[in-house]
Amino acid sequence: MSGPSTSRISKVVITPVAFADPPLLNVVGVHQPWALRAIVELHTDTGLLGLGETYADETHLARLDAVAQALPGSDPYDTNALRRLVIDVLGKETGGAGASFGGMLDVSSAVDTVYSPFEVACLDLVAREAGRPVSDLLGGAVRDRVPFSGYLFYKWAGHPGLPADDWGEALTPEQIVTQARRMVDGWGFGSLKLKGGVLPPEDECAAIEALRDAFPDLPLRLDPNGAWTPETSVRVAERLAGVVEYLEDPTPGIEGMAQVAARTDVPLATNMCVIAFEHLRPAIAADAVQIVLSDHHLWGGLRRSALLGGITDTFGMGLSMHSNSHLGVSLAAMVQLAAATPNLTYACDTHYPWKTYSGRAQDVVRPGVLDFDDGAIKVPTSPGLGVELDRDLLGELHEQYLSCGVRRREDTVYMRSIEPGFTPNTSRW
Amino acid sequence: MSGPSTSRISKVVITPVAFADPPLLNVVGVHQPWALRAIVELHTDTGLLGLGETYADETHLARLDAVAQALPGSDPYDTNALRRLVIDVLGKETGGAGASFGGMLDVSSAVDTVYSPFEVACLDLVAREAGRPVSDLLGGAVRDRVPFSGYLFYKWAGHPGLPADDWGEALTPEQIVTQARRMVDGWGFGSLKLKGGVLPPEDECAAIEALRDAFPDLPLRLDPNGAWTPETSVRVAERLAGVVEYLEDPTPGIEGMAQVAARTDVPLATNMCVIAFEHLRPAIAADAVQIVLSDHHLWGGLRRSALLGGITDTFGMGLSMHSNSHLGVSLAAMVQLAAATPNLTYACDTHYPWKTYSGRAQDVVRPGVLDFDDGAIKVPTSPGLGVELDRDLLGELHEQYLSCGVRRREDTVYMRSIEPGFTPNTSRW
Repeated sequence: MSGPSTSRISKVVITPVAFADPPLLNVVGVHQPWALRAIVELHTDTGLLGLGETYADETHLARLDAVAQALPGSDPYDTNALRRLVIDVLGKETGGAGASFGGMLDVSSAVDTVYSPFEVACLDLVAREAGRPVSDLLGGAVRDRVPFSGYLFYKWAGHPGLPADDWGEALTPEQIVTQARRMVDGWGFGSLKLKGGVLPPEDECAAIEALRDAFPDLPLRLDPNGAWTPETSVRVAERLAGVVEYLEDPTPGIEGMAQVAARTDVPLATNMCVIAFEHLRPAIAADAVQIVLSDHHLWGGLRRSALLGGITDTFGMGLSMHSNSHLGVSLAAMVQLAAATPNLTYACDTHYPWKTYSGRAQDVVRPGVLDFDDGAIKVPTSPGLGVELDRDLLGELHEQYLSCGVRRREDTVYMRSIEPGFTPNTSRW
Repeated sequence: MSGPSTSRISKVVITPVAFADPPLLNVVGVHQPWALRAIVELHTDTGLLGLGETYADETHLARLDAVAQALPGSDPYDTNALRRLVIDVLGKETGGAGASFGGMLDVSSAVDTVYSPFEVACLDLVAREAGRPVSDLLGGAVRDRVPFSGYLFYKWAGHPGLPADDWGEALTPEQIVTQARRMVDGWGFGSLKLKGGVLPPEDECAAIEALRDAFPDLPLRLDPNGAWTPETSVRVAERLAGVVEYLEDPTPGIEGMAQVAARTDVPLATNMCVIAFEHLRPAIAADAVQIVLSDHHLWGGLRRSALLGGITDTFGMGLSMHSNSHLGVSLAAMVQLAAATPNLTYACDTHYPWKTYSGRAQDVVRPGVLDFDDGAIKVPTSPGLGVELDRDLLGELHEQYLSCGVRRREDTVYMRSIEPGFTPNTSRW
């Protein structure tokens, strides 16, 4: 009988990185030219390296750094202790405003968002030590491929003052279909999601109908991020009934969503009004949503996202997965989680294709592991998350962070630098 | 980078055992002279042994055996595959009636009860392979001692026709206080639970009040297993408000419990109307219970019990732990689970002291690990569950199984052999 393993966290490195991001439009504005992420490295005294990835707004970075300083000596198995440590370190300062997500999401506590990348890195370490993929720590993969949906965006041809990207402009139904064609042809996606909240709802409905004509067999979703009133939401639901597999966040808030849900059979999904455990109870009581989009970055890592999955299963709700602009460490964690989630009832969202437009290697992991095939990613079976850090790429993206000047995600501020009169479209229509 | 570990289950051994049980009275009758359990052994091709413990009614044993035959070659990490295997093996035959629990509990599917001991044994194997306690697989121990409550029973001096046990008769408040004194003095319990549903509610209230007088500082609970109408339950709640920390299952069913809950501030707990995930949604919608008693034997093992814990936390409910008559493998699993459950808000139940009355070693694990100190058990930190099988003891208890003649738990049938006119007291008062 061997004694408990003694591997302990000996060093923590947090590296903010930036990668070029297209001018993707949404309800609160437009993506800045650079997307930020932070890569978390947990090193052990036994020579192992565990990885996590999270947001990199400066307030969030400061919180990550504070936890990082307290972490050496910790046991990577003991994520309950890690969570207590995060709570202790954050102390009174648990307001979520600093963990900004472009102004669209807000959580009342920063604990889960700060805890998440460390938890993922701990599970990466534990899995590497055991010689097992992370999915095995979550009960084992129930699928060997994780399906993703093609994520369509209204966009400009390029950021003003910068060269156009090679995706081109997408502001009409025809241009959205062209974008979708590239997504389907290039990645093989078997379902499509349109980020709405940019144009009047009639125009966005027309885009969905054009997609239906062009791709008769593909499930479609529309997500206006709360751009509509409940009344408009019901009208759109009537128009798109039988056309979309779900409407995501047509209107803001649990109460508004419940009003819409009561008046349509079109399933309503959310990544806005239910983004923390405290939102589940009121949302379920009001029967406000039929599908929750999990997101391990927001919900406190992989085990708490598995808990969310179990809750949606218990309460008869569907489960999908949300994405922000992200790199390969996040994608690997999403794939491991999705692989071990029996009741993942919809293909996951991902922004991943959007970072490849420049033709440059915009990632921090060695290529070849997370390639899309028929819109799905093969679940890595190598130990841990299944991805390895490429220090040259990490250095390159960190240099971009240092030089790009962006320090937080500010879609609205950036939009106003271009259209001074812009106000977010929340509940506009 | 090492490849995935290849340890596989090579042999499964299921041993039914019996141990002497006192004549403990309850709503449906009285405990038979022998309590049955089944010990599950999972052996791997790498020489490891994982343990589980469960019910041993003959229908349940047949289901366990069917799973055991299909299990060799399985990967102990892949509990999701194990669950699918159980579902496949049970096929259409998923009625819960065979997994009898003395007539008090019924679940619509046998999947979770059959899956449970195999899942526990798999986690024991994984933890042993990793050189870690099972609590580490659940996120790490948040406490180093797990508190239990002293479980008081109305009882006869002995089973008719058999020698009296050394606990003596307990049918009056004074005798219950004497029994409690022995529990508190011998094990150090810091809270007490009285199993009711045996005498008219006034008598059971008097016993609780006698306990309050004798032990002014100890939290008290009363569990009549649904012996009362909602009306009576409210009356008892009024009488015992401020005296009990909770009433457990005063009346049967979610609807009845909700009626009571609406009329009292005394928290209501359950291990009868919420004993499977399908019961959570209606119970929460009706606000029927404030505390759920988890039980990994019923709820499908340790990870699903952790899910239950997360659900009670999310929905603002308290969490305690249920017990049937059990041996040391179950107790070790309960301790590991409780250790890793942050929101375990009440001391756990256990029948464990009741099997020690004869002075003989009535267990299957080597002694010395699971000793009570101040009403709590120190969480084992050795690999796995922390207990080792004693094959001499296992053989002895298996011999008892073979010779005792009991093949299923039948409290009512046995009671009728003594009091022919007996009918269960469910909703009697």
